[in-house]
Amino acid sequence: MPTIDGARLLGDLNRLRDFGRYETGVHRPTYSPIDMESRHWIAGRMAEAGLEPEIDGIGNILGRSPAPGPKLLVGSHSESQNHAGWLDGALGVMFGLELARVLPGQIDVAAWADEEGHYGVFLGSRSAIGDVTDAEIDACRNATQGKPLRTALAEAGLADRPRLRVDPARYRGYLEAHIEQGDELEALALKIGIVTSIVGIWTFRVTFTGVQNHAGTTRMAIRKDAGVALVKLCTAIEQRMPEVAGPRSVWTIGRITLSPGAQSIIPGGAEMLVQMRDADPAVLARMRTALHALVAEANAGPCPATIEQIFETTPKLMAPPFRAALGRSAERHAPRLFQHMPSGAGHDAQILAELMPAAMLFVPSIGGISHHIAEDTAPDDIVLGCQVMADAAADILMG
Amino acid sequence: MPTIDGARLLGDLNRLRDFGRYETGVHRPTYSPIDMESRHWIAGRMAEAGLEPEIDGIGNILGRSPAPGPKLLVGSHSESQNHAGWLDGALGVMFGLELARVLPGQIDVAAWADEEGHYGVFLGSRSAIGDVTDAEIDACRNATQGKPLRTALAEAGLADRPRLRVDPARYRGYLEAHIEQGDELEALALKIGIVTSIVGIWTFRVTFTGVQNHAGTTRMAIRKDAGVALVKLCTAIEQRMPEVAGPRSVWTIGRITLSPGAQSIIPGGAEMLVQMRDADPAVLARMRTALHALVAEANAGPCPATIEQIFETTPKLMAPPFRAALGRSAERHAPRLFQHMPSGAGHDAQILAELMPAAMLFVPSIGGISHHIAEDTAPDDIVLGCQVMADAAADILMG
Repeated sequence: MPTIDGARLLGDLNRLRDFGRYETGVHRPTYSPIDMESRHWIAGRMAEAGLEPEIDGIGNILGRSPAPGPKLLVGSHSESQNHAGWLDGALGVMFGLELARVLPGQIDVAAWADEEGHYGVFLGSRSAIGDVTDAEIDACRNATQGKPLRTALAEAGLADRPRLRVDPARYRGYLEAHIEQGDELEALALKIGIVTSIVGIWTFRVTFTGVQNHAGTTRMAIRKDAGVALVKLCTAIEQRMPEVAGPRSVWTIGRITLSPGAQSIIPGGAEMLVQMRDADPAVLARMRTALHALVAEANAGPCPATIEQIFETTPKLMAPPFRAALGRSAERHAPRLFQHMPSGAGHDAQILAELMPAAMLFVPSIGGISHHIAEDTAPDDIVLGCQVMADAAADILMG
Repeated sequence: MPTIDGARLLGDLNRLRDFGRYETGVHRPTYSPIDMESRHWIAGRMAEAGLEPEIDGIGNILGRSPAPGPKLLVGSHSESQNHAGWLDGALGVMFGLELARVLPGQIDVAAWADEEGHYGVFLGSRSAIGDVTDAEIDACRNATQGKPLRTALAEAGLADRPRLRVDPARYRGYLEAHIEQGDELEALALKIGIVTSIVGIWTFRVTFTGVQNHAGTTRMAIRKDAGVALVKLCTAIEQRMPEVAGPRSVWTIGRITLSPGAQSIIPGGAEMLVQMRDADPAVLARMRTALHALVAEANAGPCPATIEQIFETTPKLMAPPFRAALGRSAERHAPRLFQHMPSGAGHDAQILAELMPAAMLFVPSIGGISHHIAEDTAPDDIVLGCQVMADAAADILMG
């Protein structure tokens, strides 16, 4: 069984942290100069590990081994959210690099571009499985400042590069490590999470149309206040969802907008985004049915209501043989300190799972914090996670 | 008793409508070039009516009669909200002009600047009663695009003009006509509203502090969702207020903001503006007490809550003798077609009432619509309203 070099792994992770260091976290948005610098550094480290790295036309780094024989693809993404944490995707990329060193010739490493959605939705990994058209790239813009993706790619020196496709025939499958981003492992004093499935994410936009009017001269009895109608629905959602949701379901109203949004004007319009996540499509369907029923009830009130689904990913099961291999390895290195659990966050692994067997491993997030400069994981937990993944990879490759 | 010239009045109102005409309404924000053009035109019409007009350093137009003897000050404001209605404010100024013609030597006419709050709160009328300091003017900025008031005044050619003060010794009092802006007169098929008092407006900012976190990885049980806390309070307000409010009280939640306001992030902060209006200070105090109690209850939940009052005007009683004179006149010209009623909107009359007896007359708003291009009043109702005010003014001046 391979033995990883914990100091080397932590050294690489800390070196990568320097690219865009921001207080205790990093600011390394996709295609920014510092992100591109870090990609070239990662490619260099891949080459030193005996891989043949290539940065492609969407910014993916694919480090391929020239050796023959069966292989695993291992990776994650290397850019960060704005002013966010240092580990997020970087951890999984550096785990891949370390695995390539201790399992020479058997591991290819990937650093997918823009998993964090600065320009699109899983742009890098979706491009690698052939799911991104040129027309989609033409249409993408930076979510923060609106820069067209084409401009960003040109500035990053990627405009003339081809986009690489991953060849499923080359691989036994795909492995990805990630920080948990929740507090469950920590709360249960566990060290390793083996992902059973990645949740589906369904987002809905609910809109109410009222009558905008003067907040002083319009009697309460004749008002059609879109904000009041929306608030009532929010309350109904908070009451109803626990009755139809599963034990691990989550739902979030992350945005509410009243228009025009002035203190002396009765809102004539109101809109909110309702997101639900679960690993079980049947649970998601139940939650959607309940939401639709509540909107229909609301629609019978003074302000017409509409609902529209604006985002949908399907829950993705992780490959059972890979989960079993991760379980055996965890049992060896962290007996009784691991669990099987769904991922509440989306990951590139759900994209790769369209093409080949895929699995994921979680290490604990201190305080459950992520996407924040305070994001961290104990060094021992990082090293342990990588060792568990290395053994599991060797196991899968021998199988 | 004086007899007004309805055609002349409607002609003047329609001429004024041309300044900034926007579809069926007007766009004439304070100190804009078209607003200043209209002010010079109004001053010209005042001069033709035998007054000595002056546009002062805050943009007020004061047209004073050179004749000796007791006088009434009559007016309103002439600018509009952005892309709004043609009558609001303009009606009261043109009523003043017509009264000056039919009661020569006894009426001074005022067109107060910026009642609509493009730069401040009742800037013109407050300046005229000595309630606006130079420091306040230094601090004011345009609510829409941020231009400093000083810049706007300079561009309008007003920078070097003195600000005029109204001398209470000169007047019996102040009269203002306005469109109702509500639908009560129309709903009751009445033609004239005699204002009993102008409501007090109290606005509160309520803020919740939660914990911003990942909407996928944070279990429902450990969330501190500031948006959920805010929505609960909104619902409690909607339930509780009717129990403590008066029959004519209104309350409005015109703005809700969740931060950061993204579909995949649990809101770490939430804020709303709660406004209440009533003509009775005791009712307002009761509503405030109830709101504070609800916020205190909410504060005991997972997200700390704070409340801060950000706006407060006192209800202003209109002068009983003036109301009586308006009532006699209405009884003569529109028997049984008038009522006494509070004003749910704020008006310059509440400012002038600090200095002298003041009263207001309402004409019906078609469909209760105001601050919108559809704002309108039937021509016959406009003419009737002006005649009622003219007789009442004569009555008061004889008194």
